[in-house]
Amino acid sequence: MENIQNVLASLPEVVADAFGQGKPAGYIPALSQVDPGKFGMAISTVNGDDFVIGDADEFFSIQSISKVFNLSLAMHYAGEDLFKRVGVEPSGTTFNSLSQLEYENGIPRNPFINAGALVVTDALLEFVKSPKRDFLDFVRGLSNNIDVHYDEEVFRSEYDNGQRNAALANYLKSFGNLDNHISRVLDFYFYQCSVSMSCRDLARAFRFLAQDGRHPYKDEQVVSRLQARRINSLMMTCGTYDEAGEFAFKVGLPCKSGVGGGIVAVIPGEMSVCVWSPELGPKGNSIVGMEALKYFARKAGRSIF
Amino acid sequence: MENIQNVLASLPEVVADAFGQGKPAGYIPALSQVDPGKFGMAISTVNGDDFVIGDADEFFSIQSISKVFNLSLAMHYAGEDLFKRVGVEPSGTTFNSLSQLEYENGIPRNPFINAGALVVTDALLEFVKSPKRDFLDFVRGLSNNIDVHYDEEVFRSEYDNGQRNAALANYLKSFGNLDNHISRVLDFYFYQCSVSMSCRDLARAFRFLAQDGRHPYKDEQVVSRLQARRINSLMMTCGTYDEAGEFAFKVGLPCKSGVGGGIVAVIPGEMSVCVWSPELGPKGNSIVGMEALKYFARKAGRSIF
Amino acid sequence: MENIQNVLASLPEVVADAFGQGKPAGYIPALSQVDPGKFGMAISTVNGDDFVIGDADEFFSIQSISKVFNLSLAMHYAGEDLFKRVGVEPSGTTFNSLSQLEYENGIPRNPFINAGALVVTDALLEFVKSPKRDFLDFVRGLSNNIDVHYDEEVFRSEYDNGQRNAALANYLKSFGNLDNHISRVLDFYFYQCSVSMSCRDLARAFRFLAQDGRHPYKDEQVVSRLQARRINSLMMTCGTYDEAGEFAFKVGLPCKSGVGGGIVAVIPGEMSVCVWSPELGPKGNSIVGMEALKYFARKAGRSIF
Amino acid sequence: MENIQNVLASLPEVVADAFGQGKPAGYIPALSQVDPGKFGMAISTVNGDDFVIGDADEFFSIQSISKVFNLSLAMHYAGEDLFKRVGVEPSGTTFNSLSQLEYENGIPRNPFINAGALVVTDALLEFVKSPKRDFLDFVRGLSNNIDVHYDEEVFRSEYDNGQRNAALANYLKSFGNLDNHISRVLDFYFYQCSVSMSCRDLARAFRFLAQDGRHPYKDEQVVSRLQARRINSLMMTCGTYDEAGEFAFKVGLPCKSGVGGGIVAVIPGEMSVCVWSPELGPKGNSIVGMEALKYFARKAGRSIF
Repeated sequence: MENIQNVLASLPEVVADAFGQGKPAGYIPALSQVDPGKFGMAISTVNGDDFVIGDADEFFSIQSISKVFNLSLAMHYAGEDLFKRVGVEPSGTTFNSLSQLEYENGIPRNPFINAGALVVTDALLEFVKSPKRDFLDFVRGLSNNIDVHYDEEVFRSEYDNGQRNAALANYLKSFGNLDNHISRVLDFYFYQCSVSMSCRDLARAFRFLAQDGRHPYKDEQVVSRLQARRINSLMMTCGTYDEAGEFAFKVGLPCKSGVGGGIVAVIPGEMSVCVWSPELGPKGNSIVGMEALKYFARKAGRSIF
Repeated sequence: MENIQNVLASLPEVVADAFGQGKPAGYIPALSQVDPGKFGMAISTVNGDDFVIGDADEFFSIQSISKVFNLSLAMHYAGEDLFKRVGVEPSGTTFNSLSQLEYENGIPRNPFINAGALVVTDALLEFVKSPKRDFLDFVRGLSNNIDVHYDEEVFRSEYDNGQRNAALANYLKSFGNLDNHISRVLDFYFYQCSVSMSCRDLARAFRFLAQDGRHPYKDEQVVSRLQARRINSLMMTCGTYDEAGEFAFKVGLPCKSGVGGGIVAVIPGEMSVCVWSPELGPKGNSIVGMEALKYFARKAGRSIF
Repeated sequence: MENIQNVLASLPEVVADAFGQGKPAGYIPALSQVDPGKFGMAISTVNGDDFVIGDADEFFSIQSISKVFNLSLAMHYAGEDLFKRVGVEPSGTTFNSLSQLEYENGIPRNPFINAGALVVTDALLEFVKSPKRDFLDFVRGLSNNIDVHYDEEVFRSEYDNGQRNAALANYLKSFGNLDNHISRVLDFYFYQCSVSMSCRDLARAFRFLAQDGRHPYKDEQVVSRLQARRINSLMMTCGTYDEAGEFAFKVGLPCKSGVGGGIVAVIPGEMSVCVWSPELGPKGNSIVGMEALKYFARKAGRSIF
Repeated sequence: MENIQNVLASLPEVVADAFGQGKPAGYIPALSQVDPGKFGMAISTVNGDDFVIGDADEFFSIQSISKVFNLSLAMHYAGEDLFKRVGVEPSGTTFNSLSQLEYENGIPRNPFINAGALVVTDALLEFVKSPKRDFLDFVRGLSNNIDVHYDEEVFRSEYDNGQRNAALANYLKSFGNLDNHISRVLDFYFYQCSVSMSCRDLARAFRFLAQDGRHPYKDEQVVSRLQARRINSLMMTCGTYDEAGEFAFKVGLPCKSGVGGGIVAVIPGEMSVCVWSPELGPKGNSIVGMEALKYFARKAGRSIF
């Protein structure tokens, strides 16, 4: 396992040239003001070991990475019924497109585009008494870190810039594919996006997907073995916006990215990985993060292909 | 002019067979419960004469016909600037489509699709102090009827079924094409749609479009001569949902319809006409109303083509 | 009637400023090399009088104006059955869009977009023995000019640049909405587009639409009264590409334009008009031609609105 | 390795219930008349061992599986330049959609939708002297079977039903994304689709993708290691029409399917697998084939997730 630490140690040099090619997400002040030079990476193995480098313990906004927690919790409660309301196929359009809904009658293509995540959020609301608290507790438990929190400023910014999501929610409602009040769904959804975590937290929190759904710190299943597989396969085909094909080639692992600059990857049976660097490429994924995962997957000999 | 009265008198027989082929609008209880056998027609000539038949003095929900009042008032205040934010071309899609906005960057194709009317409503809000009161006063003045009112039940129903419009409003906002708060725009828009008027009221209220923009009962211009022309041409190409081509053929006059079953037509230089019958065809226009206008235009020798 | 001649005489000064703002169609060498300063206009009244000005007797490529001849001839033979295969509503997309066909199952929205004209061409092929000869004879008869001809160079250029039309034809065939062999349909369609006529020819040839379908030079109906009305209304709502709304406002008459720079307008009951100037605006219509028709319609007091 | 033979031996019982739920492809007589009860599977390991069961040596039409040979050969010659003309992302639309091309300016989303395969075919034509012969030789070499051939009847049927592909080709040409004559591209493309192979042939022929691009029977690289990886990742995200997400979940391996009922899967570093059963599900993939691969991947412990 010292092997992993060595690979991590060589990363800064490997990815050095990748800095300066992108920009942090601009639509929210709280994101655009992040230091673009930040870089961290953490690994959490199924043995329970952690490996970190750089700013791996600094909090950042998890943004769309939250969609995996959202989905996992909803699948835990709702099971396969969830997929009557949301598909499992790549969308071929931008993550916040409304057109797809129009010609497919309000069924979002997958749970990782915004429309899909809103439907999942709506489904989840049926099962949780205190949605925000329960969600936070869930994520804190997975990362074994009581300091995981939500960022009030990001939360407010999401609201201020949330018209596209509000449009999606209203549109879904008009198709009958939202049960709860729109504002309740949006409020919970924005909350999820504004959770702050570190690379270490996220690597740990995703470990259940590397170990057949078993909770990393409790003697329980987060999701079933088959559900973990479903989530991993969704991350593989739909987890990185409209760049899933390129990720499959370069990284070859199930990944989920967020516009906060984080990317989490899963090596089933072995480990989960989280990398963070705020500069985004044209498709909304961390440029340095992608390069780091590409290098890591190759070095670890763990790319799928 | 007795000619007109004769044509009106022969109408019930002429359109008798057209009843029973459609259904009143179903999405709002207040509309679906209207007696489908209702039929009225009214004509208001530029000389100031009125001709009526049937249920011409019964109130009904004007729905999308309100878009013409909305547009007229907004053009009165905002002038040509309005058309930087909304186009003047037919849409080729359903009246509440979101896809068109997606590929045309938030500029609705014309003021008579819902997205366009929302933009116009937003523009109008810049100029009116008490939007609802001012709008109602405007319509009351045009129809010379202080009893014109808005229907509280319809208004509430619009809200309850307004997700698609809320989606459009939020979407427009995300493109920066709404200045006011979304809820303020929607509230005013739903209000306009829930105004109740009779055929006589509407025929009178549209007379300004038959007389180069002059107010029917006051010594003032509602809109300029050129603006009246713009509104008439928009009614001709975009006034009857996705059936404008068929209307141009059958009626050959600028028309605006509403899902309440009303249709208003303008014969520039001569008169305005309103017909009402609640049964709608597949494209949302009154079946009997269309037949009545077709007959009237032919008899009056006033179709354009 | 000398009135008309006076209006024509004042035109060159009126439209002088409109020159130099656009460019001749660029996709075909034969069109792009036309002298952009050309300008002609002709009027043919139902009394049989002709009025001309400028280059009114010079031949130019009629391009999409041919779609009206195509449609008229097909309606003459096939009657209303034609409209089972092609719609009568504006498209809201560019004239050569394929997307519309995809979501409307191969039924073009109207006969004046390319897809619609191909279907009409296909329908017409069922009724004519020598398609090209019959078509040319038809147009020569309507314009009373044996010198009307097709331009071999334009025809070849249409072929060389005809992939988009070939795509549409193949796509229509895949939906079962073309009966004849694709190459036969395209060959006939390209032929129609490459006919050369003068303003005088076109004004005369469209006169049947101003006189209830009666042939301008023969004692016969080109189309029925109702069919003439259908064609006029289609020209009004769909005759000028994606600028029909603006034409309705500025000109207020049924018009059909072509990228050769010609525009024909109809004043039902009175006359037909043709104007030609090669410089096109961004939507493919002659800029000077549009201004000339706007002025003429106003002066003649014949705009519809 | 006897393990593999045991898994194969248990397959017929495992998939027995999956028969009778779908239908062979209906658009081509040669395909629709295939015995729906056919079932075969073959495995070719990187050690050079073959394992087969059922109708594994019967020829069937490879259809879209040919797109992998097409792509491999084109990448071999053209390298990364190819991806200037075709993307690497899932399409989210049906395999023969034209709309996507319209809003993405003639760049197909990936090489496995028809539009993409046509572009790849066009690119390949630059490098092969006798396209059909060279293609067949390539496939024969990969499968080490001189009897691999193309099916004249299928080839003719592809032509007879090829309007959609012809539409795509013409459309691509109109965007400048085809260099060769359309008929030449289509002829070569249809030829590729009408090649007949057995499960054993296909399993062998795909083995280069399991062994970093090395030819299974020659001492040469079919493609580079990185190119093999690109092809595998494209198969993973785009290889099974609009069912890639479901395949990732159920099978978890790079797969490419064809409407002839064949599916090929790759286990990098270990083996390639081909299964054949003609009954297709609603998305065009072999139902029994999918079940068999699902079972096999699980038993072999080789699903990625």
